[in-house]
Amino acid sequence: MTTPRYAYLGPSGTFTEAALYAMAGDEEIEALPAVDVPTALAMVRDGSADYAVVAMENTVEGGVTATLDALAEGEPLEIYGETVMPIAFDLAVREGLGLSDIGSIGAHPHAWAQVRRWVSEVVPGTTFVPAASNAAAARQLAEQEFESLAFDAALVPPGVAPRYGLAVAAGAVADSVNAATRFVKVGPPGGFVAPTGADKTTLVVHLPNDQSGALLRMLEQFAVRGVNLSRIESRPISDRPGEYSFSMDALGHIQEARVAEAVVGLKRTCPVVLFLGSYPAAHGEPTPVIAGTSDLEFEAANEWVRTLRDR
Amino acid sequence: MTTPRYAYLGPSGTFTEAALYAMAGDEEIEALPAVDVPTALAMVRDGSADYAVVAMENTVEGGVTATLDALAEGEPLEIYGETVMPIAFDLAVREGLGLSDIGSIGAHPHAWAQVRRWVSEVVPGTTFVPAASNAAAARQLAEQEFESLAFDAALVPPGVAPRYGLAVAAGAVADSVNAATRFVKVGPPGGFVAPTGADKTTLVVHLPNDQSGALLRMLEQFAVRGVNLSRIESRPISDRPGEYSFSMDALGHIQEARVAEAVVGLKRTCPVVLFLGSYPAAHGEPTPVIAGTSDLEFEAANEWVRTLRDR
Amino acid sequence: MTTPRYAYLGPSGTFTEAALYAMAGDEEIEALPAVDVPTALAMVRDGSADYAVVAMENTVEGGVTATLDALAEGEPLEIYGETVMPIAFDLAVREGLGLSDIGSIGAHPHAWAQVRRWVSEVVPGTTFVPAASNAAAARQLAEQEFESLAFDAALVPPGVAPRYGLAVAAGAVADSVNAATRFVKVGPPGGFVAPTGADKTTLVVHLPNDQSGALLRMLEQFAVRGVNLSRIESRPISDRPGEYSFSMDALGHIQEARVAEAVVGLKRTCPVVLFLGSYPAAHGEPTPVIAGTSDLEFEAANEWVRTLRDR
Amino acid sequence: MTTPRYAYLGPSGTFTEAALYAMAGDEEIEALPAVDVPTALAMVRDGSADYAVVAMENTVEGGVTATLDALAEGEPLEIYGETVMPIAFDLAVREGLGLSDIGSIGAHPHAWAQVRRWVSEVVPGTTFVPAASNAAAARQLAEQEFESLAFDAALVPPGVAPRYGLAVAAGAVADSVNAATRFVKVGPPGGFVAPTGADKTTLVVHLPNDQSGALLRMLEQFAVRGVNLSRIESRPISDRPGEYSFSMDALGHIQEARVAEAVVGLKRTCPVVLFLGSYPAAHGEPTPVIAGTSDLEFEAANEWVRTLRDR
Repeated sequence: MTTPRYAYLGPSGTFTEAALYAMAGDEEIEALPAVDVPTALAMVRDGSADYAVVAMENTVEGGVTATLDALAEGEPLEIYGETVMPIAFDLAVREGLGLSDIGSIGAHPHAWAQVRRWVSEVVPGTTFVPAASNAAAARQLAEQEFESLAFDAALVPPGVAPRYGLAVAAGAVADSVNAATRFVKVGPPGGFVAPTGADKTTLVVHLPNDQSGALLRMLEQFAVRGVNLSRIESRPISDRPGEYSFSMDALGHIQEARVAEAVVGLKRTCPVVLFLGSYPAAHGEPTPVIAGTSDLEFEAANEWVRTLRDR
Repeated sequence: MTTPRYAYLGPSGTFTEAALYAMAGDEEIEALPAVDVPTALAMVRDGSADYAVVAMENTVEGGVTATLDALAEGEPLEIYGETVMPIAFDLAVREGLGLSDIGSIGAHPHAWAQVRRWVSEVVPGTTFVPAASNAAAARQLAEQEFESLAFDAALVPPGVAPRYGLAVAAGAVADSVNAATRFVKVGPPGGFVAPTGADKTTLVVHLPNDQSGALLRMLEQFAVRGVNLSRIESRPISDRPGEYSFSMDALGHIQEARVAEAVVGLKRTCPVVLFLGSYPAAHGEPTPVIAGTSDLEFEAANEWVRTLRDR
Repeated sequence: MTTPRYAYLGPSGTFTEAALYAMAGDEEIEALPAVDVPTALAMVRDGSADYAVVAMENTVEGGVTATLDALAEGEPLEIYGETVMPIAFDLAVREGLGLSDIGSIGAHPHAWAQVRRWVSEVVPGTTFVPAASNAAAARQLAEQEFESLAFDAALVPPGVAPRYGLAVAAGAVADSVNAATRFVKVGPPGGFVAPTGADKTTLVVHLPNDQSGALLRMLEQFAVRGVNLSRIESRPISDRPGEYSFSMDALGHIQEARVAEAVVGLKRTCPVVLFLGSYPAAHGEPTPVIAGTSDLEFEAANEWVRTLRDR
Repeated sequence: MTTPRYAYLGPSGTFTEAALYAMAGDEEIEALPAVDVPTALAMVRDGSADYAVVAMENTVEGGVTATLDALAEGEPLEIYGETVMPIAFDLAVREGLGLSDIGSIGAHPHAWAQVRRWVSEVVPGTTFVPAASNAAAARQLAEQEFESLAFDAALVPPGVAPRYGLAVAAGAVADSVNAATRFVKVGPPGGFVAPTGADKTTLVVHLPNDQSGALLRMLEQFAVRGVNLSRIESRPISDRPGEYSFSMDALGHIQEARVAEAVVGLKRTCPVVLFLGSYPAAHGEPTPVIAGTSDLEFEAANEWVRTLRDR
C-alpha cells in the first residue's frame, strides 16, 4: 500500500498542517505544501495528491471563500472528514529577545486580524508587515541578516517556533479565547465513509431568486424530514444576477433515509444541487433523531405505502 | 360473471339511489336499499353487498358524519369512485292537487333544511312533518287514506314522483341553486383503480394535539411534494380528549410518487393514518403538477441519490 | 333592568334548553323556544330575543351546519360564551311500563344516531319512528291516547321525563360514554366580554382556492404569533366553485396582541374574514402563552420598533 | 455648514475610495484614510469622522467579515446608503515597461485572489508578493529605488496609476467579468433616510440553536408579511457554542408597515436583534409589494381590528 499524499496550505508550520496531522492520526502520510487552497484542491483533481486538507470556516489563514468556490467548481470532490483547531498563536522572536524589543510583526493579514487587539494592548505601537504566510515570516525572521529584517517578530502556531530556531516571546496570542477554524479533508468522489450516527452532509444549492419564500421552501425540504442544519451561507451567483447559492451542512449521512429523501426533494426543486460528501462530525455527538425520522420508521412507512401501491 | 350488488341509503327514490345509477352507468347491477349509511357500509364489510354508495359531503339526506365515521372505524374499506349530484326537489302531491292545497310537508329533516326558505316564500305558513326518509313520506302520501294523512306533500328527487303515482306541484325546489351532494362508491380494500391523471386520494389522519403547529407540519408533508387538498375537516376524537382527527381529500393517486411520499411522511409522523382509496375525481380535470413533482422528476432525483448512497 | 330573553331550539326539554340554563346560572331569564337554529338566531337579529343558545359542535339534535351557516350569513352576530354538555338520554316510557314493553322509539333522527348501538344490544328489534324533536316525541307519548301511539318510548335529556309525567325505563343511554355537545350563547355584536386568560376567538375565513399552500399560509398567520387552533373545518362555498370557507376557533382573545395581529394578517390576505366573537372557553384552562407572544413582549417589541421609525 | 468627513479603507487609490466618491456625488467632502475597516468604523464611533465607507459583500480588499463584526459590536451604527462597484484592476508598471517585463506582482492577497487565473494565462510564471494594500504596492513601485523593488507591477483600481506616476501595462484585469463589491456608507444611529420605495433594511439576528426549525420560524416572520431577503449569512457565535448569528438584508424600509411588523416579530422571538439601518437600494428597482402587504392594507386591517377591540 502506498503512503497517501495530502496537499495542504503550506509552507510547513501553518495551522492547516497541524490540522492535517490531527486528522491523519497515526497513519503515515506524505504532506505536500501548496501555495493556496485552489492549488491544493487542484492537486487532488489532477491526481498529484490523494487528499487535500483545507480551511472551511472561520479561518485565520484565508481560504474559506476560496474553499467553498473551489469545491463547487470544476471536477467533483467530496469531503471525507473534518477537524476543528483552536486558533491561538505563539509570538516568535529571535533568541534572546523579548516583548519589549518588538516594534513590528510580520504575518499573513488574516492572522494579524485575529490578534490586533491583543497587540494594541500588550505591545502598543507595534506595526504590521504583511507576509505571504505566517511561516514565510518566521523563516525570514530566522534566516535573514538581522539588519535587513523588515520586522521583529512573527505569529506562528503553537510548537512551531523551535523548528525555525526561534524563541517564544508570548504564547496564547489571540483576541478571542474561542477562536477556532474548521478544516476538512477532501478527496475524489466515491470514497465511502460509512455512517457513524454523528455525521454531516455538505451541500451547495442554487435558488432561482432572492425571495424568502424560495428559501423557506428549500428549508422545508429539511424540516419535514427532521433534518437540522449546522451551517448555512448565501452568496449571490456572480454571473447570474438574482440567483443565490447556498452552502450548508446538514446533520446526518446520505445513507440515512431522512437525509436521502431531503436531498431528493432539493434535487427535484432546485436548479443546482451539489453533493460534497457525508462524513463524521468532529464533535462526535450523535445526531438527535426526532420521532418519525429514523431509518426504521422510514422503512416501515415506505413498506406500508408499497403495499397500497402494488396490488 | 355475477351481477354486482350495491347497498345504498334506501328506500328506492332517494338521491343516493340516483347517484348509484349515475355511477353504475350501463353496467347491470343489483341495488340493495339499506336503512342508513352505517348499515350500507356494514353490508360491504360482511359480504352481503359488493359495494355501497354513500353521501360524503353536503348531503341533504344525512350521513356525512356517519359516512366519515363508519368508513374510519371497523374493517378497512376503500373508495372506488365519486359523483356529484345537484340537489333540487320535486314537491310531490296527490293527483289533482296544487300548491294552494298544501298546508304541511312531510320530509326528512335534512331535506327540509334545504328548502325552508323556498317554502316560506312560495307557500308561506306551511308546516313541517318529519319523516324517516323522503321516500317514506312519498309512499305514505300515495298509500294512506286521505283522511289519515299527516301532511299534504312530499319532497322527492326529480323524476321519482310518478313511481308513487304522485303529481309534481313544483319542480327545482331548493334554497340554493348550487346545492349538490358528493357521493362515493365504497368497496373492500385492494380493488385497483388505475391512475387517470385526475384523481383524488382520501385519508384520515390523527394529530396528537390541537396546536396549529401540528397542523402546519402535517400540511407541510403535502406542500413539499406539491400535493394540494380539495377537502379538509377536523373533528375532536371523542374518547381521546385533545386529539384531533382530520379527514381530507388530496389531489392525486397513491401510485403517483408525490402522493406516495407525502403519505409516507404522514405515516412516519402521525399517530394514525387511514388510507381510504385513490379514485378518479368526478370533475375530470387533470391534476396540476407543479415543477419538480412529476413522477419522472421524482424518479430522476431518487436515481441520482441512489448513486450517491450505493457505492 | 329587564329580564334577558334567550331563544333556543325548543320545545322545552331539549339539551339546548339544559345548556341555556347551565349558561344562565342564577340569572333570571326568559326562555323562548324556536323551531330551529336559524329561527333562534333570526330572533336575535330582529330584536325579539336578546341572545340565542345554539349547538355548535358534535350535536345530537342537529344544527351544527345550520349554526355555522346562520352565524356567517346575514346581520353580524357574536358569540358571548360556550358550554359543553355531556350527551346521554333517559329512555322515557309511560308509567308502569319497562324495557321489555318497548317495540319502537320516537326520537329526532340525530338522537337516534347516538343510541343505535345501545338499542340494538339492550332492546334488540326495536324500530325507530322519526319525530321533529325528542321533546315532541315525549309530549306525544304523554298526551295521546294509548291506542293512537306510533311508538312506545322517547329519548329525553336527563331529568326531563317527570315534566311529561313519564317514567324512566333506562338512564345513561348512549353509544359513546364521551358524547358531548358544545353550545354557544350568541348575541348582537359589540357586547364586551373581557379577556379571562382562557378564551376562544371564533373566525370564518375564505381562501381563494383549494391549494394546500393557501391553507398553509393562512395557518402561518397564527403560527408566527404563537396562536393555536382548537377547531378547524373547511367547506366549499356553494356559489363560488373552488373557493373554501374555513370556520375555526383560536385560543385567545381579540384583545390579546398575538390574536389581534394574527387577525390583522388574515384580514390583509384573505378575501373574507368574519369575526364571531371572543369569549371565555368552557374548559377554563389558561391559554398557554409561548415565549415571545405575551402582551408585554408585543408591547416592548412594538415600542422598540417605534423608536426606530419615529425620529 | 461643515464639510462632512468620511473615513475609508486607505490609502488613497483603493476601490473603497472610488466607492466613497461615487456615493458622495457632487457633495464636497473630506476623505480620511484608515488602516482597516474596524478603524474606519471606530472613527465614526469616536466622532473623528461623520461617516465611514466600508466593503460589505464580495470584496477584493478584505473587510467583509470585519465589517459585519465591527458593525455588530460596540456602539450602534447605521447604514445610510450603498453602492456597487465593478471590480477590475489596472496592472500598473513603471513608465517604459510592459507585460513581458513582469516577473512578480505586489498586491493585497484579496486582490491577488481575484486575478490569479488571468495572471496564469496572460503572464504565466509571475509570482505574488503580498502587500498591506494595493495602494501601498503602487507607492512602493513608484517611490523605491528600482534595485530594491520586491516586485515589478502592482494591481490598482482603474484611473489610479497616473497618480503614482505609473503606466498601465494591462486594463480590465479580473478573473470574472462580473466581479463587483458592495460598499455601504455608515454613520451614527438616528440619521433619517426616508423611504424611496426601493430600500433595504439590514439586520443581525441571533438564533438560540442550529435547528432548521428555528431558522424556518425566523424566515416565517418575513414571509407572512411578504418581505423578501436579498442576502442572508449565518455564522456561529464564537463565545456561545450552538448559537448562530444571521446577518441579512430585507427588501423594504423600517417605516413600511410590513417591515416594521416583521422586525417586531423578530424582536419578540429572537435573543438578539440589531437594526443596522434602512436605506435606498443601489439597484433602484422598486420593491415588489404583493397583495395584502401594502401600508394601506396594513392600516385598513389594523383599523378594522381596532374597532373589534376598542368598544
